[in-house]
Amino acid sequence: MPHIDFQTDPARYHHWRLAFDGPVATLTMDVDPSAGLFAGAELKLNSYDLGVDIELADAVQRLRFEHPEVGAVVLRSGKENVFCAGANIGMLGKASHGHKVNFSKFTNETRLAIEDAGTHSGQRYLAAVSGTAAGGGYELAVACEWIMLIDDRRSAVALPELPLLAVLPATGGLTRLTDKRKVRRDLADVFCTTEEGVRGRRALDWRLVDELAPPSVWQARVDERARTLAALSDRPREARGIVLTPLDRRIEDDAVTYSNVRVTLDRPRHRAIVTVRDPDALPADLAGIRAAGAGFWPLAMARELDDAILHLRLNEPMLGLIVLRTEGDPARVLAADALLEKHQQDWLVREVRLLLKRVLKRLDMTSRSLVALIEPGSCFAGTLAELAFAADRSVMFVGHGADAPTVALSALNFGTYEMGNGLTRLATRFLGDPDGVDRARRAIDTTLDAAATQQLGLVTFAYDETDWDDEVRLMLEERASFSPDALTGMEANLRFAGPETMETRIFGRLTAWQNWIFQRPNAAGEAGALKLYGSGARPGFDPERV
Amino acid sequence: MPHIDFQTDPARYHHWRLAFDGPVATLTMDVDPSAGLFAGAELKLNSYDLGVDIELADAVQRLRFEHPEVGAVVLRSGKENVFCAGANIGMLGKASHGHKVNFSKFTNETRLAIEDAGTHSGQRYLAAVSGTAAGGGYELAVACEWIMLIDDRRSAVALPELPLLAVLPATGGLTRLTDKRKVRRDLADVFCTTEEGVRGRRALDWRLVDELAPPSVWQARVDERARTLAALSDRPREARGIVLTPLDRRIEDDAVTYSNVRVTLDRPRHRAIVTVRDPDALPADLAGIRAAGAGFWPLAMARELDDAILHLRLNEPMLGLIVLRTEGDPARVLAADALLEKHQQDWLVREVRLLLKRVLKRLDMTSRSLVALIEPGSCFAGTLAELAFAADRSVMFVGHGADAPTVALSALNFGTYEMGNGLTRLATRFLGDPDGVDRARRAIDTTLDAAATQQLGLVTFAYDETDWDDEVRLMLEERASFSPDALTGMEANLRFAGPETMETRIFGRLTAWQNWIFQRPNAAGEAGALKLYGSGARPGFDPERV
Repeated sequence: MPHIDFQTDPARYHHWRLAFDGPVATLTMDVDPSAGLFAGAELKLNSYDLGVDIELADAVQRLRFEHPEVGAVVLRSGKENVFCAGANIGMLGKASHGHKVNFSKFTNETRLAIEDAGTHSGQRYLAAVSGTAAGGGYELAVACEWIMLIDDRRSAVALPELPLLAVLPATGGLTRLTDKRKVRRDLADVFCTTEEGVRGRRALDWRLVDELAPPSVWQARVDERARTLAALSDRPREARGIVLTPLDRRIEDDAVTYSNVRVTLDRPRHRAIVTVRDPDALPADLAGIRAAGAGFWPLAMARELDDAILHLRLNEPMLGLIVLRTEGDPARVLAADALLEKHQQDWLVREVRLLLKRVLKRLDMTSRSLVALIEPGSCFAGTLAELAFAADRSVMFVGHGADAPTVALSALNFGTYEMGNGLTRLATRFLGDPDGVDRARRAIDTTLDAAATQQLGLVTFAYDETDWDDEVRLMLEERASFSPDALTGMEANLRFAGPETMETRIFGRLTAWQNWIFQRPNAAGEAGALKLYGSGARPGFDPERV
Repeated sequence: MPHIDFQTDPARYHHWRLAFDGPVATLTMDVDPSAGLFAGAELKLNSYDLGVDIELADAVQRLRFEHPEVGAVVLRSGKENVFCAGANIGMLGKASHGHKVNFSKFTNETRLAIEDAGTHSGQRYLAAVSGTAAGGGYELAVACEWIMLIDDRRSAVALPELPLLAVLPATGGLTRLTDKRKVRRDLADVFCTTEEGVRGRRALDWRLVDELAPPSVWQARVDERARTLAALSDRPREARGIVLTPLDRRIEDDAVTYSNVRVTLDRPRHRAIVTVRDPDALPADLAGIRAAGAGFWPLAMARELDDAILHLRLNEPMLGLIVLRTEGDPARVLAADALLEKHQQDWLVREVRLLLKRVLKRLDMTSRSLVALIEPGSCFAGTLAELAFAADRSVMFVGHGADAPTVALSALNFGTYEMGNGLTRLATRFLGDPDGVDRARRAIDTTLDAAATQQLGLVTFAYDETDWDDEVRLMLEERASFSPDALTGMEANLRFAGPETMETRIFGRLTAWQNWIFQRPNAAGEAGALKLYGSGARPGFDPERV
């Protein structure tokens, strides 16, 4: 399989169309059956694969940065009779276990980005379901703030995964049924085991949709609801968006290089080294930030880091360990943070902060071991210090004089970058020692040497010159010697202490069950439902319950 | 493998000793290596299998009912140099996937029962760790309210599952590290990947234990701490316990029959029918309850239902569907509830209520489809109505006249029987419609026919005589036709809507990851760590991350 590219733009979309009418945008799903990622898996009936979702994620991102005037997005189908049939089954049958899991993870992140746009950015999504929304199609609808269903005696919403495919809805469907839409659990049980789904009044009564409209007034009602949602927005209608220009990226056999991020691939050691660089230059004010646009360092760095993480997830599954490094002047990173803090009320700066939050969450959700090395010449300051806090472990070099690495905190470490559990990384870190957060807050604007950093509990270990090389080498080698599966499970459990949210539940609970089910013979075996789907043959199930 | 019996008593214990000294009991783990459940799996170094845990669960239960005078329980080892080495690896290597999963579930329930005794029943556990507590051994300690570790330069606490066996700690270890003990996540990462564990001062500093004591004062400090914990108890020192007499049980090929519970095994249809009977007679007052002892209907019924659930889980894995039925007079069940409500301040009645809560949670946690049939002659009232609310679906017969089944609620449906998520089943049911709980509360003491029951949203569907047989038959047949794995995953997601707790996290998240890891080749394959443990050969891992 060729390498999967997460970069695209509307001019290259195969599967989506964007249209604009003042504060309302319409995002039309019209999947090209022949443009799937996997040869032989035709994307019929608006079913999707990762390629379709990469375009969706791109559209969701561009709507935020390029269209400040848009307060509501109508998600609709360009096909007759079907809204979206969900993930393509042929693709799921052909894809590796790892691809399936990472496909589910990415699509979940995209659904969460849709919700994030509504909750934090004044850009609300309306699902206009005309034709059946099945499986991932309905899950796409439940990620929206409002679901309208046409009442035409045909169109239904459905989660047919269990009866049809012997797997679970993989994009948060079960969790959003119970936790977001609060569907009664026995009705949810009936819904999830009814292949043909639920239509009309019953769908409304069961809380599966928010509004019904007959065909005669469908378009008018959708327009009206979209305008109502748009009117709730605090986005500036007169502002001009910035263009998310193509990334400056070079992919080589053993490296991926961007302007501000460098990924070195150490295949023999199953290791990737990700190095993030400080800003070259920063604008002086808000006008400068707007003029810099996609070149504004926090935005450029975030987009590059995001692409790097996704590249490693999908294209480099054998590299189980990600070493996180930084290079540059901590003062410059703190200067960038100061800009983000000073202008936080501005719509564009808000988008940049929210993107950084999502990219750091993408890192948290990456099932690779993360180790941060705080070395001479590094700049783990403010926003970049989050990389160390996201790591499973961080180790710091104890140096002397000008060569000694330091750590620094900024206001952004204390509220801007919440994890999926709703807490900052520092609050999660200090669950057992809440004063630890206050002590760290008092250290904002202080340059912290290794002793001070350790004293504050911000790093796992610190080693001096005598021990550094050996200790780091041993730690990284040991990590690579452990079972990748057990590491994935352990890290997923240890990274998200504290409160659970719909988001941690989707990733921690639902994903784990799906991982298991995806490789049980009843789903994925030669006589499993996933393999036999569409063949006309009935799957054979081992009735044993575990 | 012979059928597994969950009934035992101290006279028959192979692995534990109970001793009493006023308000302090000592529970000594001294596993008989040759008395394991699996031939050839020697239980060395206080390692355990399900049989060891069945005795522990029995001891924990008896301490509550038979010893009202006990306010603290010291958990210690009867071996030199080892506290407990955790689950026996030979057993894990030989056991089926289903046995491993159910073994983990039961041991988790026992750990939660230990915590429940401290939180709700004034019986606090103290782990006196002398010698190493590794894996499940440390997890047993973290289930206790207080952990003392001897500071002898040898004894350590450890979770070596990942480096040693390529699996996760299966008894809540990861969750209790982060959520109960609030160990910093990077230190938890180091701890969980360090085979030899952590000793002395570092164990205290990392919050892994609560107290250290040198060997010279070890016993004195343990005694002192136990007395301090016992002094916190509200249990009545002068009261007399009741004896948990052996269950009246008959196991036949197609049925298990108790005094108040009957299980019919319909193997061709992969179905078990569990019928709970109303009380024959009830005592008039508290003195009568004490005199009835283990014969008091709510207690007898709870113990029988508990045994029936465990029997089905371990001994009948092919029966994926449990049909829940009741038989008798709803008024008698409500009369039993009235006794439990009136005397709720009494220590014994408190224990009965708490046992019912735990048994109903055991039902929630059972990975079988649960369907309640509310038929003529049934008594889904008060406590027994919880069976219908625990079910994935409930259906009610619409009858006429005296033959019509009814449902009734009691005060106990509104607070006594919290699920693992901390909410009652009715509160969970009505998450999307909080008024639904109030409406139901106003119906306490009302006899609800099918129309009223449906109106209140207490059943999924109601069918009249014309449709009942066909609808029920189709529903049960359809359920049996689905993939058991997908049903397990779906039910685990839909049953526990709303808040997550340490308990739902252990079962929902950790268990799901463990299920997956338990059957990945890196752990369970021929070259997997679990299979090769003790052989001297090194496991070969597929480095791919998913």
